[in-house]
Amino acid sequence: MLVRRRVDVHQDAVTEPGAEGARIRWLITREDGAPTFAMREIEVDPGGHTPFHSHPWEHEVFVLEGSGAVVGKKGETPLGPGSVVLVPGGEEHNFKNTGRATLRFLCLIPHPPA
Amino acid sequence: MLVRRRVDVHQDAVTEPGAEGARIRWLITREDGAPTFAMREIEVDPGGHTPFHSHPWEHEVFVLEGSGAVVGKKGETPLGPGSVVLVPGGEEHNFKNTGRATLRFLCLIPHPPA
Repeated sequence: MLVRRRVDVHQDAVTEPGAEGARIRWLITREDGAPTFAMREIEVDPGGHTPFHSHPWEHEVFVLEGSGAVVGKKGETPLGPGSVVLVPGGEEHNFKNTGRATLRFLCLIPHPPA
Repeated sequence: MLVRRRVDVHQDAVTEPGAEGARIRWLITREDGAPTFAMREIEVDPGGHTPFHSHPWEHEVFVLEGSGAVVGKKGETPLGPGSVVLVPGGEEHNFKNTGRATLRFLCLIPHPPA
């Protein structure tokens, strides 16, 4: 059993082109012994956003704090604490901070094939 | 893309033997189109706990609010907001509320084979 605190996990800038003011912590990874999926926490500064992109894997998102929106092919949907998002694989999306404080959310993804 | 609020998801009592004062919301399920894993939110009343049990699948847990502990074969580890837990498949465990307010956490699991 692994128990840790989010604040003890190293945080990296999201450097993918199109990202702005976004940081990521990999809270649970394959290297930790997780066999199926990874848990990440993402923080976005006011005015910032994750890249608008698509990929073959799904996202399962839970918003912890802040105000934001998820952007998809049909426009924007507002998000706040307790918002839940499933982005299916292959669907273009990004997450942006629309508030004055940090937007913080969990974003879980399946492991890529080994 | 699916967007919903946790409060809009139906909450059920956890009725498994050994559970006390525990409730569950299935926030993202296979029926929603999630291909790999499910997101659930669990609430435990003060003094309550989930069943002490084991199963073949892993848990990935993120504590949202409250004070509690995860119990395993080596004893108890305290949990609070921002605690992260990986319980490997096959390992006995439960979660208990050790505080005076509701303990609330996300608990994600892989889908069983279809």
